[in-house]
Amino acid sequence: MINTIGRHPERASQDRALLDDLLRTQAVGVLSSVTPKGEPWAVPLLHALDADRILFHGSTGSGMLRHLAAGAPVVYTVFALDAWVIGHTTFSSSANYRSATIRGTVTNLDGDEKEAALDAFGDSLFPGRPDEVRPMSAKELSATLVCALPIVDGGWLYKARTGQASQPGEETDAWGGIVPVIPTLGEPARAPWSEAAVPASVLRLTARTMKS
Amino acid sequence: MINTIGRHPERASQDRALLDDLLRTQAVGVLSSVTPKGEPWAVPLLHALDADRILFHGSTGSGMLRHLAAGAPVVYTVFALDAWVIGHTTFSSSANYRSATIRGTVTNLDGDEKEAALDAFGDSLFPGRPDEVRPMSAKELSATLVCALPIVDGGWLYKARTGQASQPGEETDAWGGIVPVIPTLGEPARAPWSEAAVPASVLRLTARTMKS
Repeated sequence: MINTIGRHPERASQDRALLDDLLRTQAVGVLSSVTPKGEPWAVPLLHALDADRILFHGSTGSGMLRHLAAGAPVVYTVFALDAWVIGHTTFSSSANYRSATIRGTVTNLDGDEKEAALDAFGDSLFPGRPDEVRPMSAKELSATLVCALPIVDGGWLYKARTGQASQPGEETDAWGGIVPVIPTLGEPARAPWSEAAVPASVLRLTARTMKS
Repeated sequence: MINTIGRHPERASQDRALLDDLLRTQAVGVLSSVTPKGEPWAVPLLHALDADRILFHGSTGSGMLRHLAAGAPVVYTVFALDAWVIGHTTFSSSANYRSATIRGTVTNLDGDEKEAALDAFGDSLFPGRPDEVRPMSAKELSATLVCALPIVDGGWLYKARTGQASQPGEETDAWGGIVPVIPTLGEPARAPWSEAAVPASVLRLTARTMKS
């Protein structure tokens, strides 16, 4: 049931480039799993796309992340709300969206691989920022848990609705159209303890997002 | 494990007003459950807050929604990314967010209750829109499945990080601050088949969101 397209098969795609684009433009998703007792469990997480895997990080104090790294099956869900679709009726009103679910099991990264993954993580969220600050200390590294969820063929599902409100199959004088949802970043606000100028990485971050 | 605060207990709250505000300002979340075979399952959904319950809708053709309405436990996760938090190190960088997980079982609504719930749903997403268009037909009603997830004391968890980048515990000349994430709606774009003027509900929608 999970891997079938179900409703609206025309909205599904197996184009990896679309999946990658969604994972790159959205930084947050929901990781779902099943507890040892068989109950559903879910948590919103930041992620980074790193070639054929999705990286997560958390505290080594998180019992659930350790449970997941022991091989519990997970589903990671990412979505973008791109527009409200206002139809000529409430029934035909909808949303333009992109969404993906990626299934698999996560593995815990260690040693050099963990350090490289954390660099990739930082660079994915804030491109260039890791080079502007000191490296992570050994203590910080050991307090951080890094997991990877591989993206494998047949293990993910991508769906999207695009375009305008559907043409009515009846006479109507109602308005129909879309209202775009535009992700926007505001002006950077410096912390009271900081006296530095806004760094290049933060300027790039706001420029990039405001354009997209 | 699910119901404990875990990491960062200071970020948790049991203030229902905060939960309600998050559910009202975010229209999309992820519904997670467990399949009959014990595998994790998740889908992004639109929701509406209706007093002490969360409403979902979908097609009656959805096998999974029928499975859920038969009493499978679910977790519904909603989050808002409010700002990027740029610390003096990558380790201290983070995000300001609000998130909630609501656990329970969903029930299928029927008859008058279903019709009233669909009106509440439409009015929650697009306030005033249901009054501008014709009512749902009997055929549309019977093709639509409406579920409700009750919000009960002890059955939900709310967490938030707010404020500035944490004060460094070391000497640094690095920039630290936040970059706000601002949800924005663009100009309504009329569908080619529609000749009507932008209705009051759509004007209100864009005005409301641009202000918030």
